[in-house]
Amino acid sequence: MDELFIKVVIASWKQVVSRVDQRFAPLNDEQLQKQVAPDRNRLFYLLGHLTAVHDRMLPLLGIGDRLYPALDEVYITNPDRSVADPLPAADLKKAWGEVNTALISAVEKFSADDWLKKHTAVTDEDFAKEPTRNRLAVFLSRTNHVAFHAGQVVLVK
Amino acid sequence: MDELFIKVVIASWKQVVSRVDQRFAPLNDEQLQKQVAPDRNRLFYLLGHLTAVHDRMLPLLGIGDRLYPALDEVYITNPDRSVADPLPAADLKKAWGEVNTALISAVEKFSADDWLKKHTAVTDEDFAKEPTRNRLAVFLSRTNHVAFHAGQVVLVK
Repeated sequence: MDELFIKVVIASWKQVVSRVDQRFAPLNDEQLQKQVAPDRNRLFYLLGHLTAVHDRMLPLLGIGDRLYPALDEVYITNPDRSVADPLPAADLKKAWGEVNTALISAVEKFSADDWLKKHTAVTDEDFAKEPTRNRLAVFLSRTNHVAFHAGQVVLVK
Repeated sequence: MDELFIKVVIASWKQVVSRVDQRFAPLNDEQLQKQVAPDRNRLFYLLGHLTAVHDRMLPLLGIGDRLYPALDEVYITNPDRSVADPLPAADLKKAWGEVNTALISAVEKFSADDWLKKHTAVTDEDFAKEPTRNRLAVFLSRTNHVAFHAGQVVLVK
């Protein structure tokens, strides 16, 4: 039963990630400059943002060190168009793919117990009080986060 | 352990629904006429769409009959601005609240076994081959669906 639960949770993540991935994949640097709505984020920024947020999940879920920590400054700390994009589209897409591969191959090995372990941003003490602050909660929250931005990405014609 | 899994899944749903709810709640009929981007859906349409989709979850999850089946024609079958809105904003918001209350109070009573039962749009035969076509899969998919549209709703200033 646990196994089936986990299978469905991972399938849900894969579905939203692949949905946004299919949108980004065919676009070049220039096409990625489009904004999702007037005065709103460029697709390029959203790709960087999602890559940075997923990269942060590696330590947060206890999987390992980050692959692209330098992206945070540009795509999390600062708003769009305030800092120059440090990577061309092809390299950013490569990073996006690498980060997602690292994540998915690790979580596919998680046991049911692993999923219910605390994430690394919560203390032992707080976790004892709130056992829902676990890896599963982070994973579902980030699944919703991709879906949230996917809703914006599809607005670009 | 199952209990903790389910708790996290339901908390994730509540978080995205309440996020979009807080956006819609203060808006009147006129404010809901705004579109999320040029030539894209109005907020009013998205509220109707989410209400209709959640209402469909009642029979899909085996909870009970639909409360607002008439919304489908306007907010699922047809694109925005092709059919007149059948309800004023206040009534549509009431429907949105009722549907979500019916859903959440039913799923909060689901046991782990209930979550892994087939949803009603899959045959026994197909379910035997693909046991992931269960209620949990529907619930996660609809959680992502709300998050997807929440990402659009927040674009309106």
